[in-house]
Amino acid sequence: MASLLLKNGRVVTADSDSVCDVLVEGETIVAIGRNLPVQADQTIDATGKIIVPGGIDPHVHLDMPFMGTFSSDTHETGTRAALHGGTTTVIDFVLQKQGHSLREALTEWQGRATGTAVGDYSFHMAVTDFNPNTKAEIQDMIAEGITSFKTFMAYKGALMIDDAQMVGLMQEVSRHGGLVTAHATNGDMIDTLIAQHRAAGKLTPLYHYLSQPEVTEAEASGRFCDIANYTGVNSYIVHLTCEGALNQVRRATERNQRVFVETCIQYLVLDASLYEDEVHGAKVVMSPPLREKKDQTTLWAGINQGLVQVVGTDHCPFMWEQKMLGKDDFSKIPNGHPAIEHRMELLFSEGVTTGKISLQKFVEVTSTNAAKIFGMFPRKGTISIGADADLVLFNPEKKHTISADTHHMNCDYSAYEGWELTGKVDTVILRGQVAVQNGETKVGRGYGQFIKRGKTAF
Amino acid sequence: MASLLLKNGRVVTADSDSVCDVLVEGETIVAIGRNLPVQADQTIDATGKIIVPGGIDPHVHLDMPFMGTFSSDTHETGTRAALHGGTTTVIDFVLQKQGHSLREALTEWQGRATGTAVGDYSFHMAVTDFNPNTKAEIQDMIAEGITSFKTFMAYKGALMIDDAQMVGLMQEVSRHGGLVTAHATNGDMIDTLIAQHRAAGKLTPLYHYLSQPEVTEAEASGRFCDIANYTGVNSYIVHLTCEGALNQVRRATERNQRVFVETCIQYLVLDASLYEDEVHGAKVVMSPPLREKKDQTTLWAGINQGLVQVVGTDHCPFMWEQKMLGKDDFSKIPNGHPAIEHRMELLFSEGVTTGKISLQKFVEVTSTNAAKIFGMFPRKGTISIGADADLVLFNPEKKHTISADTHHMNCDYSAYEGWELTGKVDTVILRGQVAVQNGETKVGRGYGQFIKRGKTAF
Amino acid sequence: MASLLLKNGRVVTADSDSVCDVLVEGETIVAIGRNLPVQADQTIDATGKIIVPGGIDPHVHLDMPFMGTFSSDTHETGTRAALHGGTTTVIDFVLQKQGHSLREALTEWQGRATGTAVGDYSFHMAVTDFNPNTKAEIQDMIAEGITSFKTFMAYKGALMIDDAQMVGLMQEVSRHGGLVTAHATNGDMIDTLIAQHRAAGKLTPLYHYLSQPEVTEAEASGRFCDIANYTGVNSYIVHLTCEGALNQVRRATERNQRVFVETCIQYLVLDASLYEDEVHGAKVVMSPPLREKKDQTTLWAGINQGLVQVVGTDHCPFMWEQKMLGKDDFSKIPNGHPAIEHRMELLFSEGVTTGKISLQKFVEVTSTNAAKIFGMFPRKGTISIGADADLVLFNPEKKHTISADTHHMNCDYSAYEGWELTGKVDTVILRGQVAVQNGETKVGRGYGQFIKRGKTAF
Amino acid sequence: MASLLLKNGRVVTADSDSVCDVLVEGETIVAIGRNLPVQADQTIDATGKIIVPGGIDPHVHLDMPFMGTFSSDTHETGTRAALHGGTTTVIDFVLQKQGHSLREALTEWQGRATGTAVGDYSFHMAVTDFNPNTKAEIQDMIAEGITSFKTFMAYKGALMIDDAQMVGLMQEVSRHGGLVTAHATNGDMIDTLIAQHRAAGKLTPLYHYLSQPEVTEAEASGRFCDIANYTGVNSYIVHLTCEGALNQVRRATERNQRVFVETCIQYLVLDASLYEDEVHGAKVVMSPPLREKKDQTTLWAGINQGLVQVVGTDHCPFMWEQKMLGKDDFSKIPNGHPAIEHRMELLFSEGVTTGKISLQKFVEVTSTNAAKIFGMFPRKGTISIGADADLVLFNPEKKHTISADTHHMNCDYSAYEGWELTGKVDTVILRGQVAVQNGETKVGRGYGQFIKRGKTAF
Repeated sequence: MASLLLKNGRVVTADSDSVCDVLVEGETIVAIGRNLPVQADQTIDATGKIIVPGGIDPHVHLDMPFMGTFSSDTHETGTRAALHGGTTTVIDFVLQKQGHSLREALTEWQGRATGTAVGDYSFHMAVTDFNPNTKAEIQDMIAEGITSFKTFMAYKGALMIDDAQMVGLMQEVSRHGGLVTAHATNGDMIDTLIAQHRAAGKLTPLYHYLSQPEVTEAEASGRFCDIANYTGVNSYIVHLTCEGALNQVRRATERNQRVFVETCIQYLVLDASLYEDEVHGAKVVMSPPLREKKDQTTLWAGINQGLVQVVGTDHCPFMWEQKMLGKDDFSKIPNGHPAIEHRMELLFSEGVTTGKISLQKFVEVTSTNAAKIFGMFPRKGTISIGADADLVLFNPEKKHTISADTHHMNCDYSAYEGWELTGKVDTVILRGQVAVQNGETKVGRGYGQFIKRGKTAF
Repeated sequence: MASLLLKNGRVVTADSDSVCDVLVEGETIVAIGRNLPVQADQTIDATGKIIVPGGIDPHVHLDMPFMGTFSSDTHETGTRAALHGGTTTVIDFVLQKQGHSLREALTEWQGRATGTAVGDYSFHMAVTDFNPNTKAEIQDMIAEGITSFKTFMAYKGALMIDDAQMVGLMQEVSRHGGLVTAHATNGDMIDTLIAQHRAAGKLTPLYHYLSQPEVTEAEASGRFCDIANYTGVNSYIVHLTCEGALNQVRRATERNQRVFVETCIQYLVLDASLYEDEVHGAKVVMSPPLREKKDQTTLWAGINQGLVQVVGTDHCPFMWEQKMLGKDDFSKIPNGHPAIEHRMELLFSEGVTTGKISLQKFVEVTSTNAAKIFGMFPRKGTISIGADADLVLFNPEKKHTISADTHHMNCDYSAYEGWELTGKVDTVILRGQVAVQNGETKVGRGYGQFIKRGKTAF
Repeated sequence: MASLLLKNGRVVTADSDSVCDVLVEGETIVAIGRNLPVQADQTIDATGKIIVPGGIDPHVHLDMPFMGTFSSDTHETGTRAALHGGTTTVIDFVLQKQGHSLREALTEWQGRATGTAVGDYSFHMAVTDFNPNTKAEIQDMIAEGITSFKTFMAYKGALMIDDAQMVGLMQEVSRHGGLVTAHATNGDMIDTLIAQHRAAGKLTPLYHYLSQPEVTEAEASGRFCDIANYTGVNSYIVHLTCEGALNQVRRATERNQRVFVETCIQYLVLDASLYEDEVHGAKVVMSPPLREKKDQTTLWAGINQGLVQVVGTDHCPFMWEQKMLGKDDFSKIPNGHPAIEHRMELLFSEGVTTGKISLQKFVEVTSTNAAKIFGMFPRKGTISIGADADLVLFNPEKKHTISADTHHMNCDYSAYEGWELTGKVDTVILRGQVAVQNGETKVGRGYGQFIKRGKTAF
Repeated sequence: MASLLLKNGRVVTADSDSVCDVLVEGETIVAIGRNLPVQADQTIDATGKIIVPGGIDPHVHLDMPFMGTFSSDTHETGTRAALHGGTTTVIDFVLQKQGHSLREALTEWQGRATGTAVGDYSFHMAVTDFNPNTKAEIQDMIAEGITSFKTFMAYKGALMIDDAQMVGLMQEVSRHGGLVTAHATNGDMIDTLIAQHRAAGKLTPLYHYLSQPEVTEAEASGRFCDIANYTGVNSYIVHLTCEGALNQVRRATERNQRVFVETCIQYLVLDASLYEDEVHGAKVVMSPPLREKKDQTTLWAGINQGLVQVVGTDHCPFMWEQKMLGKDDFSKIPNGHPAIEHRMELLFSEGVTTGKISLQKFVEVTSTNAAKIFGMFPRKGTISIGADADLVLFNPEKKHTISADTHHMNCDYSAYEGWELTGKVDTVILRGQVAVQNGETKVGRGYGQFIKRGKTAF
């Protein structure tokens, strides 16, 4: 079994911080120590580098059919770009087609991901049609290692389930110890506002924003918490963006409820003023939309309060040409933006460097918490003996500039074009293999493995 | 430098769980690995044992003058008992005497602790008289490694500071990056209720409980949060017991505030029905008093919500003879109960074994979080390279029974007499030395060191 | 013009309490005074009686098609019974049929009520299908004096509108200064629970209750408040029953929102223990169901806090034979119970006599507030010059017993059978005519007039 | 007995609105009617005028010793000015001197008010030293018709009581059915901030404002609610100014508590920007200070939510020369401003004319609610038979300008100088006597009577 030795790095996890060596054999970490008295097949000098657990991005959409097109990163390009940014594992969404089975959808997604992913991946199952047949499949999916079930409270007629289905799904998932997650926005309200804006000829990207006011997210978040509390299921809100929504979760704590919360990097660092650009606003058309400065403040606070456990991306890139499908009508702009590659560097630069969060919090929200919540711990999310050797060597001082010219995502623009960041991913190791080094990908198409997941253990 | 090798234990920290070896050289951990290829001066077979970081109990009162007597555990007996229960570090309270300086108090406490403590210890400084002189000493105390400042919102005329002093203290501590903690109960209200009960001849232990209704704690907790929010200081509520008080902290999250919360083991496992015993009720007379079942539910939930970060003890034992000073008048019963020794075993048995909390949470609330909040991380609170080798080998299956006959605390009764627990401390290592083994103390008086502390990093 | 003089009664309104005379000419009050020096065509000695404004019950269902049958009181029998209980004006619900216009529904209801009602009445318009055609009719309805628009958040496929329709309706009603009211329960959740109970063979009335747990009402109430706040419309929750729902309204006050709240008499005085009777439980099957004692406490408090402004009935009687349609399946029991006749006597006896509410509050919640909220003030809801002479002479000391044998509602049982009340309606005057005296109805079929209503003025 | 007839006015009360006549005999109203067929000794044509109940200002400080001087309006000049503004009854504060009895204070105040007041008045008793002697006097004061007990949570050493005294006072007042009111600000915090600003040479009026941030009021309001809830006493917060404080009351509703709230006219119409004027800022130095626009929004909403029941003034005028005692130090500026005369005209112009509140709300908050809360109903606060003939003829269209040149208060400036208002008091009647007409006072020194008050009946 090949061995790899990282010498003299500053190993930082959610509960440690020490300068030492890390020894890998095969795919796993076998020793951590000061001046480990060993020889390895390969040795990397990590002096001056921070070594953190490989990032986990639990919210990505690769090669996803949406709004008549496909998100522009495949499992290959997307996971490769993720690796360049220090994210070694992603969880992608399988979308059940209404009227069809979960199994069909899984098969379809497996068809796209198997043998193509460069980094490790897992699947959430998005349940868009809960009925007696679907109910019977929940247990099967859990047996497949797919233990989290996504729901959409928006996109009626395509993805949305109603509250009747929500109750039923939660009860069934709860019975099997799984987790229910939600895109928690009130689709009915949003559809109405979109229609009104269109009818009024209000078609620029700004109206995308104005069609999803804070209340649409706050309301649905509260409703999701209510139903989850009634059913007792483990629950998780994806891409929470705003004060109104987080306050619903905070209030739910008063009835002794725990609801996990994910925000995404863009909601921490970008804001709605970008929608004022009638052309480039399209680049940040996503759902929920970017919010206000006060919401950023809330989200950073939520991280430090322990009430926002995860920072993901909702990576869902579209080429500019695709975005331009909506150049005359915001409602036709494919939703999403490319972020899978820069999540960790952005959070480090904007969060750790500025002193907003500690290094431990950085590791928690980029990796450890997701591993625990989504049943991959302690295999993923930590630097410990027996864990997968998913390691990121990070240069905390290095300045660099984001650009579509140099990024690895299959997208011809970046929402962060020209941003200068402090702190850069240097070397990435995935299951013992150097995956990225000197800006080059060192592992190939198909290296990524599907990660079967277990139950939430937090 | 002497070396010690723990073979084949299940090493569990807040973010890891793996079967491996731990190598200690001198006082620190130098390697963790699977089948570490080393020889050591001493080897312990940890097979079948869980190895967790040495416990930190940040709330103990040793050899403390109180209500005309002294708590019955000295720094020697108290820290020795702590070690037997897996707690390797305690934080004791230095109490400023009103009209005197912080330095005087520190000198007095150092006089009692230095050279006597068996386990490691640090000090909080209880500021009972904040004035221009005290203000000037804050910085000195921080330089001494005493970075947390305790306040009492009760015990007027002895320990209590008013809100004017609270504002001033918080501002000064904030300026130097320290932490303010509070015994958050409304002393004025309580004093009135005590006086009323006494005047009415209501003198049994039950009236201790009824003199401190939930509102007295909820009110003061809210007030403490309010002032802390205004001053921006890092803040921490000690021995929080009830729903009303935790809800104040939860509501404070809505204004983006973070307040750390400690509960104590007794509030999780005992309740106020014990006060109905007119004689033995005295054993659990403490302040705040035990509460109701619904409050236990709240506290367990708070731990899992991440809003209660620490489980301490408020260990403050008195011999039965001392307790009997109040046999005719609850207000003369010295407040406190012996708990330093059983905190971890009780929490494991009642929390982990029952499935209420995960093993990771267990480590967080007994050790890691306290280390981070109180500025001892990463030296304490974790099992990682370079950290103090404070290690507890825990036998998760072993059943045992608590009894004053066998415990090591200097107290002739136990509030948990006859409780059968699952999970027992087997071996304890403090800074590389086996401190407890086979039920025997292996380190002597004075082995314990004072731990200088830095700033909160959470 | 005929004149009527009430001598020496204790006139009590929301803001007065004085012993005096009231002089009526034709349909209106023309003078109030001490020993008015006038002669009248008819004089009634009101000595020892309390004279209050005629009651307004803004929530009744007369001759309503529902669940395959009709509620058993027609506009004639229902308003006659109302008069006997001191309620001189009712507001009945016109139900739009999905796929049909508001106008059609109004015409149908007018067909049933015109010329038959004995007491005064008005209509709410229940919008069950909001679409561009309906939208255009809102203004027409307001022109007809129908200024309040009822929505159902339950009964999918029959009455329920979704949130998209809710937004649209609220916007349109807001534009014209009207009021939107809601049956605020989550129909989707309820439908699921009903189906589950039925599938499990749980078919007794108790499962009616268990299919509509508190969360179903709390959730929908919160959602209704959220959408109302967004649209800025005047809003009103009908038949609110529980703490969870009222707390949503209370929380909404923190964003400076005002939402009017109606509870019904049964929720104040009956509780869910009645559902344990497998046969007679059917008598109190209604939606929302009866709740717990703690909810009664909340509702009484809400009245005194000014947050519950109206006590109605949701009168919707069915004969026992009709109720027995569901003897083998709770979901087939027609929902509703007879209450129109005893609202005021029950509230007086259980509220005023017990000291829970003041006489002024009694008048506010039985009459004045409804008049203000529903645009009938100052014509109705008060005893003042120029107002309709709708007057109730109440004997505050008289004890009497409720029984189906003696009540005037067309229903062969009473949920309050055998209740002994203190305080009885003695004489009722409607628009200057003695309508009830000595237990006899003195006005005939068709005496009741349709009351055109204006905008909310509170 | 002399009679007075008001012809053809628009009589508006909290629950009526009708054009009619009002007949007065002696001091009371004896008839209200359309074209009353009577002759009276005096007739006033009220055509085109609104007739409302005489205003009640429950928060005034006349001839009050404070900060080394006396407020500049005596009971004579103050109540005369009040009459000119339509306020026929005021409630003044008797201040117990610490170490002395309530009786002594009452005697002193009676000495100043008896025979001098022009308008009617009552007293609150401010308890500044609650001890066994004071406790024994509570019942006596209630027997005197002084049923409301004011507390100060600020002004330590002069007026403030601590929470121990608060509990005791509330319990005693509750036992006798009285009401406890509070100046709810955290005096300790404020004293600290004042001292800090002074020490830093920050001495302009702006620092008065900055010494009493919102939290000082929110905290104390919450504490007051908490203690009131525990003791069960009827409670009332005086001069509430801000969102933070009102939110405490709103939250208290969730535990089914009712706390009455008074704001003052200045908090609705003035804001803290006035403190930026280094000279004239002194005119609005009062405690609590003026707040922000968002707080005005909250207070108007609170009125319409029914959670703010009273608009008073905290009238406490000082001559400019007195204000200038603090020209070099804000802490020496006597607190208070002249407002007793313009409360009703300001509220009408800024509230009713703008559509913020209804005419009924106007009457409720200026008169009726205070009468009910403070035990003067139905003698005061309404226009009904047997009530005192306290009547204000108001010209709703008339524009006029506020000026110190023309006002009747003994104060040489006005905070509202030059404000043009719509709506003016035309004629004022107090207990049947024309008190103000054509801008002239028609009743003399000593006409005002002390009003004995009963218990809260709301």
